[in-house]
Amino acid sequence: MAPPALRPLLPRPLPFFLPAIILPLSLSLIFHPLVSTHPHSLPALEASFGFSLLAFLASLYVVPALGPAFVAKGFKGRDLLKVGGAFVPESMGLPIAAIYILLLMLFIPYPFTVPSAVGPAKTGPFPHEELTLYLSALLSLLTATLLGFLDDVFDIRWRHKLPIPIVASIPLLLVYFAQGGLTAVVMPKGLRGLFGTVVELGPLYYVYMSLLSTFSTNSINILAGINGIEVSQSLIIALSVVANDLLYLPLPRIDLPYLGEIWEHRGMSLLGVIGGEEMVRRHLLSLYFMLPLVGVCAGLLYHNWYPSRAFPGDTFCYFTGMTFSCVAILSHFPKTLLLFFIPQIFNFILSCPQLFGLVNCPRHRLPKLDESTGLLNPSQVVFPPSPAPPPPFRTVLSLEIFSALRLVKLERETKKEGVLSSSGRGRIRSSTNLTILNFLLVHLGSMREDVLTKVVIMIQIAGSLLAFFVRYGAVRLFYDGDRK
Amino acid sequence: MAPPALRPLLPRPLPFFLPAIILPLSLSLIFHPLVSTHPHSLPALEASFGFSLLAFLASLYVVPALGPAFVAKGFKGRDLLKVGGAFVPESMGLPIAAIYILLLMLFIPYPFTVPSAVGPAKTGPFPHEELTLYLSALLSLLTATLLGFLDDVFDIRWRHKLPIPIVASIPLLLVYFAQGGLTAVVMPKGLRGLFGTVVELGPLYYVYMSLLSTFSTNSINILAGINGIEVSQSLIIALSVVANDLLYLPLPRIDLPYLGEIWEHRGMSLLGVIGGEEMVRRHLLSLYFMLPLVGVCAGLLYHNWYPSRAFPGDTFCYFTGMTFSCVAILSHFPKTLLLFFIPQIFNFILSCPQLFGLVNCPRHRLPKLDESTGLLNPSQVVFPPSPAPPPPFRTVLSLEIFSALRLVKLERETKKEGVLSSSGRGRIRSSTNLTILNFLLVHLGSMREDVLTKVVIMIQIAGSLLAFFVRYGAVRLFYDGDRK
Repeated sequence: MAPPALRPLLPRPLPFFLPAIILPLSLSLIFHPLVSTHPHSLPALEASFGFSLLAFLASLYVVPALGPAFVAKGFKGRDLLKVGGAFVPESMGLPIAAIYILLLMLFIPYPFTVPSAVGPAKTGPFPHEELTLYLSALLSLLTATLLGFLDDVFDIRWRHKLPIPIVASIPLLLVYFAQGGLTAVVMPKGLRGLFGTVVELGPLYYVYMSLLSTFSTNSINILAGINGIEVSQSLIIALSVVANDLLYLPLPRIDLPYLGEIWEHRGMSLLGVIGGEEMVRRHLLSLYFMLPLVGVCAGLLYHNWYPSRAFPGDTFCYFTGMTFSCVAILSHFPKTLLLFFIPQIFNFILSCPQLFGLVNCPRHRLPKLDESTGLLNPSQVVFPPSPAPPPPFRTVLSLEIFSALRLVKLERETKKEGVLSSSGRGRIRSSTNLTILNFLLVHLGSMREDVLTKVVIMIQIAGSLLAFFVRYGAVRLFYDGDRK
Repeated sequence: MAPPALRPLLPRPLPFFLPAIILPLSLSLIFHPLVSTHPHSLPALEASFGFSLLAFLASLYVVPALGPAFVAKGFKGRDLLKVGGAFVPESMGLPIAAIYILLLMLFIPYPFTVPSAVGPAKTGPFPHEELTLYLSALLSLLTATLLGFLDDVFDIRWRHKLPIPIVASIPLLLVYFAQGGLTAVVMPKGLRGLFGTVVELGPLYYVYMSLLSTFSTNSINILAGINGIEVSQSLIIALSVVANDLLYLPLPRIDLPYLGEIWEHRGMSLLGVIGGEEMVRRHLLSLYFMLPLVGVCAGLLYHNWYPSRAFPGDTFCYFTGMTFSCVAILSHFPKTLLLFFIPQIFNFILSCPQLFGLVNCPRHRLPKLDESTGLLNPSQVVFPPSPAPPPPFRTVLSLEIFSALRLVKLERETKKEGVLSSSGRGRIRSSTNLTILNFLLVHLGSMREDVLTKVVIMIQIAGSLLAFFVRYGAVRLFYDGDRK
């Protein structure tokens, strides 16, 4: 008899009242700009919010509906951190990406035909340039989704996988090039003596941008391993980008009594008059991509939350990572985006010795479940004990440095077991794996899987708050006055 | 012991001298326009021809290289018309589409940045509108490819499959709409009394265009079943579109002695001065899509030719069908395109009783192999013999009509076997399946599989010649003077 745990979990039940509320709301937001005779200042943004709600609802219902079909075709994975290890549908990033891209396609007429009080549609010519960039971003997203799914199907080898984000960024970058896009970067103050205030990167700018795609894609992919972690980090980064975009939009003209002082810039952005229409357009474009992303991530997270009923798969990481880098390229905030990736950057740097072969990298580096307590412990990379030859010098060196920085916890052989290393300390027997998850478990102690996910979410939120501080507070240390 | 025939066939060997000739040629065509200080009249077309050669070469090498990986992941099909029925890699349309789309992405800078003697790039503003349409077509192609592959993976049910081409045409049609594209159709003479010369279809135009995508996609998909047939029909349609496009391009200024009369329109198109720059731009755009399609189809056909080493799969049919309809929509020749689909239209009409359930439709309708002679015979749909109830009236009626038109061959029960039908003829015992392949076998007699493929190729070529006659000869019966 097959063990019962190998059957897939039942899908998480859906609250029956949700569609009754969200569906009419989203449809009215979507259709209102089409029929309204008094379009207010940002009709496409209203529709985008409607599409975002629809994206949330669609993800909520499509993911459990397609789960069995995915399991039947072999897209399933064992949940390694559960007793019994139930099968969970894998690659659910594919329907998520499909919903997202379909809705972004249906959104095309809004910013590019409906008259708007902001942007060139009202007074100027047809916004071909923006539409072109929008389409090229969609092409990049679709390419990333297709290649991500092929990775899920064919288990592409690591070295063949690395250029995937670069291939996916080709349409966006070539269109950017064909339109003669900016390739200059504003330098922080400290570097201006060396490089000047604005550095024209030329072709190097395209290298910088494709590295950005590679980083944003892979850094989400490697901060994985526990339920809900890929999706929740994407959700928080998307919400952070949304918050950043909102700073640049004109505020609605609402007269609030007693708040005259704060609201004196009515009709202007929260940041005051900075950058003008061009800046508003860029951040609107970013919102059109980010709002539906928030929707699909929230919908998937409902099913991906501990205990997980759906795994996102590589497809999801390629798709969201590419969305972030597309938006950063289109709306010209690559450095701000990187600030929202602080936990991912930390995790990447921490992972480097294992990614680049200085330290053994096992297939899975996720934490270890203690079945008796139900708590997670740090997982370890174990070296063959004496009398086997000791780990090579590069391994010992990187681990000793990381240990001194309290990033990993080493176990050493005692004197009687083996020989002392040259430093007089015992030879390294094992090290915790080099990921932020194990790092947290080392410092905060064993905890349940969902608690660990919540801790990472807190860190991601703290990272975003720090990013805003750096961007709009501490930025005066590095750049002059108001930044555009 | 497993029967040896279940091992996949060895890949067809590749002539070693081919890359040595084609690779330098294609690369020089691709790079020449970038470095040439004297760009001739059509630099992007030169590059497009280079990309087309590269597409051919890449398909030739990539298909056999990926075959084993596809077979390993279950993308394989038994060749039903071979003794033993060897396994053949399936869904090879996916790498073909990937090569094609990647090359079309890399092609973006050519028509849209390199100065050209034709089109607005030389004198006017940046050709945003064309680039936008180009990108939306790429989006449609990529969507069709992704959905086609999902069909290959998940075996999507027939009724869920039908809207796939409509979904894939959304980006193209919405961009066409956002740009305020033409929605008028020029009527043939006979219908002008009823509808007027030019009919403004309005929203119906979009219905017409999505039906075009559905037709071009599915009509290739149902004219299938023998080695090489899907790919060769796509190749011939693509070559026909290329020939049609070339009629509109300015002729190179070559002074040929004794040919003054024929070449008096030097610098003009083969059709004389018709339509001007706008017409040239449209047909150049069409060529940019069709030339690389010819390349990939030719490359795949080499491996797909009898006895087939690679099957194209649904992915291929979705991808090529969508390419044809995109080009017809972008370059405004939907009616001309349909003329190149004469054999597919015949096959579709012939198939209708089986597609719409009037006559039983078995899973496979491909011809039947006579293992003793190696020849193909028409396959049959057999009805339960007496005393089972006779086939329903709708089945009998459609088969009797088709039989009277000599489109199918019926077998009837003799008098002593069963009762006579009301017409006095024996009850229908079986009919040949309603496809053009069985129709040909009924009329031309049994033949080998590759001979049947060649016959269909001849018919497709004859259909295209007829199309050119109707379009440029007989068109005067239906339309006034020179058509634009």
